[in-house]
Amino acid sequence: MSKEITSRSSDYSQWYNDLVIKGQLADYSAVRGCMVIKPYGYTLWENMRDVLDKMFKETGHTNAYFPLFVPKSLFEAEEKNAEGFAKECAVVTHYRLKANPDKKGALMVDPEAKLEEELVVRPTSEAIIWNTYKTWIQSYRDLPILVNQWANVVRWEMRTRLFLRTAEFLWQEGHTAHATKEEAVAEAEQMLRVYADFAENYMAVPVIQGVKTPNERFAGAEETYCIEAMMQDGKALQAGTSHFLGQNFAKAFDVKFSDKNNKLDYVWATSWGVSTRLIGGLVMVHSDDEGLVLPPKIAPLQVVIVPIFKGEEQKAKLDEKVKGEILPALKALGISVKYDDNDNNRPGWKFAEYELKGVPVRVAIGMRDLENNVVEVARRDTKEKKQYSLDGLPNALQNLLDDIQQSMFEKAKASRDEHITKVDTWDKFVKVLDDKGGFILAHWDGTAETEEKIKELTKATIRCIPLNNELEEGKDVLTGAPSKQRVLFARAY
Amino acid sequence: MSKEITSRSSDYSQWYNDLVIKGQLADYSAVRGCMVIKPYGYTLWENMRDVLDKMFKETGHTNAYFPLFVPKSLFEAEEKNAEGFAKECAVVTHYRLKANPDKKGALMVDPEAKLEEELVVRPTSEAIIWNTYKTWIQSYRDLPILVNQWANVVRWEMRTRLFLRTAEFLWQEGHTAHATKEEAVAEAEQMLRVYADFAENYMAVPVIQGVKTPNERFAGAEETYCIEAMMQDGKALQAGTSHFLGQNFAKAFDVKFSDKNNKLDYVWATSWGVSTRLIGGLVMVHSDDEGLVLPPKIAPLQVVIVPIFKGEEQKAKLDEKVKGEILPALKALGISVKYDDNDNNRPGWKFAEYELKGVPVRVAIGMRDLENNVVEVARRDTKEKKQYSLDGLPNALQNLLDDIQQSMFEKAKASRDEHITKVDTWDKFVKVLDDKGGFILAHWDGTAETEEKIKELTKATIRCIPLNNELEEGKDVLTGAPSKQRVLFARAY
Ligand SMILES: [Zn+2]
Ligand SMILES: [Zn+2]
Repeated sequence: MSKEITSRSSDYSQWYNDLVIKGQLADYSAVRGCMVIKPYGYTLWENMRDVLDKMFKETGHTNAYFPLFVPKSLFEAEEKNAEGFAKECAVVTHYRLKANPDKKGALMVDPEAKLEEELVVRPTSEAIIWNTYKTWIQSYRDLPILVNQWANVVRWEMRTRLFLRTAEFLWQEGHTAHATKEEAVAEAEQMLRVYADFAENYMAVPVIQGVKTPNERFAGAEETYCIEAMMQDGKALQAGTSHFLGQNFAKAFDVKFSDKNNKLDYVWATSWGVSTRLIGGLVMVHSDDEGLVLPPKIAPLQVVIVPIFKGEEQKAKLDEKVKGEILPALKALGISVKYDDNDNNRPGWKFAEYELKGVPVRVAIGMRDLENNVVEVARRDTKEKKQYSLDGLPNALQNLLDDIQQSMFEKAKASRDEHITKVDTWDKFVKVLDDKGGFILAHWDGTAETEEKIKELTKATIRCIPLNNELEEGKDVLTGAPSKQRVLFARAY
Repeated sequence: MSKEITSRSSDYSQWYNDLVIKGQLADYSAVRGCMVIKPYGYTLWENMRDVLDKMFKETGHTNAYFPLFVPKSLFEAEEKNAEGFAKECAVVTHYRLKANPDKKGALMVDPEAKLEEELVVRPTSEAIIWNTYKTWIQSYRDLPILVNQWANVVRWEMRTRLFLRTAEFLWQEGHTAHATKEEAVAEAEQMLRVYADFAENYMAVPVIQGVKTPNERFAGAEETYCIEAMMQDGKALQAGTSHFLGQNFAKAFDVKFSDKNNKLDYVWATSWGVSTRLIGGLVMVHSDDEGLVLPPKIAPLQVVIVPIFKGEEQKAKLDEKVKGEILPALKALGISVKYDDNDNNRPGWKFAEYELKGVPVRVAIGMRDLENNVVEVARRDTKEKKQYSLDGLPNALQNLLDDIQQSMFEKAKASRDEHITKVDTWDKFVKVLDDKGGFILAHWDGTAETEEKIKELTKATIRCIPLNNELEEGKDVLTGAPSKQRVLFARAY
């Protein structure tokens, strides 16, 4: 397989696919729209999951697991939610295959094993979970319930792209139940902050926190909070959402609790999720034409050491230094490191390979280096190379990893900020969208009609109304109708 | 809900259900045969998963993720495997729901959204994975592939029991590819040892390692290795399996590699798995009529501290000691601990609750204890109570947890050993099975016919031929035909 990466400028979309596939993150599968997450990509996901899981637990949540299937009658109970997902549901209708009498060795669906009630493969789990919470909740003493689930979900998308939009994806979905509206809103807002913290401080991806317009809300939510990120091609990506669900699911599933005064009321709900889609955003924010660039805090491998030698004797000396001293010292600092002394490939091939895979730091060590007590260190993000003394190398590399993490965030933030444009006329709106892309801050009259019209005309949507948005009198960028604030428009993934 | 547990002697099966449901491990769901794993049960599963995952990684494996769905044509490629699972497959036939014109608010399967090829919800992933490995493997340099997947699978069982046999369950499935038969066999044997190590040293469940008879092999395997455990009711439970798959899947999916001499050959395979079923076994091996008894190394909570006080002033003094000193000291040792100072429940209620949930160590502390610099410590497994000095308490509790772990294993092993009976006549075989249960070591003539006849007559199956089985001339316990060794019979879950 060629390791050549299509450049961003020649074909952005092919560049992305090349990175994902040749960078060994994922690949297409035999199942339409479903991907195989390869070991390197899955290790990245594990690292992301572990950080998030720790954040969820620190904010009082525990994990549980609910069924993959949702009986159709439960699925349809919350009408808006059902309507929102009905068009993309994989449906199990039978529970047995049998030998096909017309074709030796082949199987067919057994018509006698038809389910009485069809089962929807969960596209999201509000229905099955609120049907369960009904049995868990009687009194205020049973509240709050702060539960998260790590799971696979299925949404039958027509156009799919690795990580960004796949029929099956992995995600976490938090589902909480509360005695008061205030507490539920506070929970939804807290989880949005957790997501923003994770995106910025671990993925090195700057995000804008906001709320969706009613049009763009999650089906069944009263308020959808989101974090929005900017990709290198000027398109936005919704990186995480947190929903205040009001009492909609409690009413659909009749979940009431008695408060301290023995008064019955419906329970208040939130749900919130991020998915393997984050990996698509991570790839698109940081990578370059040579391959992936991964932030040290979640990279599957932080440091790779490549020996440069001729013959067994030189190899033995390098091995002694690296295996005897450097590897144990790096591991003791919690740095993930690989010594690639594989004989089958030359150093140049290895350099290109680890560049493609986005390993943050590459260390090369040869005989002259050993004599001079130095190594050559290359950082992936800037491609800068520098000699480092072997004395104090572990701490120096630890600091370098911290530097890279910080500098990747700053670079992404500068690029994102450069791609926020204030626009006051329709001509400029269209022109900026087409020529520069990015986020556009423009006045909106607050009506769904205008929002839809702008989407029709330009494919730009309102990504969010930023939290703590500055109020400012103005005129809608399309209709000229009075507006009280600018909102964030963009074309999006 | 009543906390009363049915006793083992009055109704073993109800006792088991009571433990699982009232012990807060899991519950039935609205989906036939699928369970909800509750936070307490899921934390137990997380602890088990984390230990196993570490063991897998230490033996060179990495995780990946493959699609939930298997197209029917791939599913049927390996004939024996397909035949083995066809009868219990959930099948997706449609990808959309639509509004039901005859019933307002209701949905129906959209007949126009019928899949061209049906998708089987994976009952196991050999087919989809070997279809993928075909694209990963060209030469011996690509081998071995040592991959594991944590996933949900679905097998449409007719009679289900929480954890032991559910339509959907969680598991891990390792799938490895090798250049030689010897290497594949060694891998399958290695993973069996990993499972035995986990069962005995973490779950405190003694197991017998062996191989299945051809009749009882995994569909598509050339050899199935297994670990077998003994429950308190005298029935066996298969706790894990590791399969040497030969070249069966490589042939079914045409996966060849070129060796060092450029000669093409089919790749050799293994697969191995354990599931949430282990939790069922864990419950049945250790628990008693008061509730769960969980081994410290994987218990969701290792120590609970219950304060005994009257009034705010006493409470404040206990809080100071516990929160200020004891909790931080225990946590520093890596002990998971909860201080239950909830005002809603009385100490006696709490004692019963944590007994039911199987928390290994309960610490009670009152005002007089504080004055005497002691606490009362109760261990769950033996129900023994003892005073411990507050001086050195953390290390003493750490030692106690180790003791409990060890002593739970020894108790289970003594009981298991007492339930292995050598039998030489058919009358005794039937009598032991009915009166005492457990494992029966008896001679078998090696034929499938006899094996099936014995199963028909007694519902006992050959659980395994133990590894390193002693050879011994004898006569088949049923037919009297010559036999070279005893094998392990039992009735099983
Ligand atoms: Zn630009
Ligand atoms: Zn007995």
